[in-house]
Amino acid sequence: MKQNIYDNEVFFENYKALREDPVNYNELLEQPEIKRMLPDLNGKHVLDIGCGMGDLARYCAEHGAERVTAIDPSSKMLQEAKLRNGHPAIDFVQTALEDAVLKKESYDIAVSSLVMHYVADYDAVIQSIHASLKEDGILLFSTEHPIVTARKEGDKWITDEEGNRIHFAVDNYQEQGRREVKWYVNGVVYYHRSFAALCNGLIRNGFSLQEVTEPMPSEAAIAQLPRIDHELRRPSFIILKARKTARP
Amino acid sequence: MKQNIYDNEVFFENYKALREDPVNYNELLEQPEIKRMLPDLNGKHVLDIGCGMGDLARYCAEHGAERVTAIDPSSKMLQEAKLRNGHPAIDFVQTALEDAVLKKESYDIAVSSLVMHYVADYDAVIQSIHASLKEDGILLFSTEHPIVTARKEGDKWITDEEGNRIHFAVDNYQEQGRREVKWYVNGVVYYHRSFAALCNGLIRNGFSLQEVTEPMPSEAAIAQLPRIDHELRRPSFIILKARKTARP
Repeated sequence: MKQNIYDNEVFFENYKALREDPVNYNELLEQPEIKRMLPDLNGKHVLDIGCGMGDLARYCAEHGAERVTAIDPSSKMLQEAKLRNGHPAIDFVQTALEDAVLKKESYDIAVSSLVMHYVADYDAVIQSIHASLKEDGILLFSTEHPIVTARKEGDKWITDEEGNRIHFAVDNYQEQGRREVKWYVNGVVYYHRSFAALCNGLIRNGFSLQEVTEPMPSEAAIAQLPRIDHELRRPSFIILKARKTARP
Repeated sequence: MKQNIYDNEVFFENYKALREDPVNYNELLEQPEIKRMLPDLNGKHVLDIGCGMGDLARYCAEHGAERVTAIDPSSKMLQEAKLRNGHPAIDFVQTALEDAVLKKESYDIAVSSLVMHYVADYDAVIQSIHASLKEDGILLFSTEHPIVTARKEGDKWITDEEGNRIHFAVDNYQEQGRREVKWYVNGVVYYHRSFAALCNGLIRNGFSLQEVTEPMPSEAAIAQLPRIDHELRRPSFIILKARKTARP
């Protein structure tokens, strides 16, 4: 999150094009699961962390949320978000999660779609979200799967001479932390965390795990985007749902 | 567990030799973490599921447990267990977990070392353990890591021509269930479960996750068995600790 690659012109234009095509991994795979796992939104105050172009914030507003506070560090993203998904129940706020001064015990639900792998200090961010949630509040977030983020070097899908995918390569699993990759532009930084790190960071900071999902494509999704069936061979994403149970 | 490969003569002799050498993955990697994660044993009644040769059962008896009920389906294993690790506080019982008629709300701690990947019906077994635990009882078990159990065919460590390990191969991750492998003898059956399946099976059956560990070798372990440093590249085991919180 602190990294603001989304305000890079080249990155932003490419990313926008990717997300504008409704046949993408977020829309076919990750968003349906996030929406299924959301608790009842009626009358709730939602904190959307890393709202991007605001689709999920608007979804929450249109499905009963009383207020949605949608934060993102990228001015370009928020500009798009206000344009596309402006809604009287949504407040868009430009801030990185790490810098955000979140109101204490104010939100019923904190939701975050594919942002947590950009966070360097996971514990600090989980603590900050914990403090901002009301008692029994729900944190629901998706992040890149540890199987996918683990290996530092080399192609991850190993292919034969004809380009067929043979298997997926895992390595460096226990080396938590910084990874750098080219995604439209060089030097996109993200952080690898093991399953154990993802779970224990929640548990030791006062959350109780409610559900873990590794999204699988539906048959309809595979019909729209056949190569997404590779998700059955290894998951791209993991989604964690946890309830605030105690003070850390 | 239901599968009783441990009563196969060839398998048993090989397995015994493996475990007799103190330089093995169980002793260097998995057992230290299981022991660290055990709650205070003083005065507790422990159920040891798949006790094998009884080392962990005796450890519990010698560290304060009032009673240890140690079950295993293999008569050969139990014979060894009684010989090596007999202790007045331990009752050894020959039964598969799936067939065991466990006393209700009787145990403070259920512990199980590297057995759960042999269980075909994970939910049924978790429910049965839940029923046998007292309120706030702890279930602590290790199992083969989903990264390791996922791929159905082919070698999992991919090596170069000189036999150096290049990376670890993952595939078939979302195809839960039966796998068959040669381990001393042909046809050893185990069950692959995703990380989500392992966690959600606990949560939906009335457990609250307390800690997740993917054991890493200590420096001392690497000094004794250098190749165990490959565990840093991908974990062999995962350990889950959960508390009984509610009726399912």
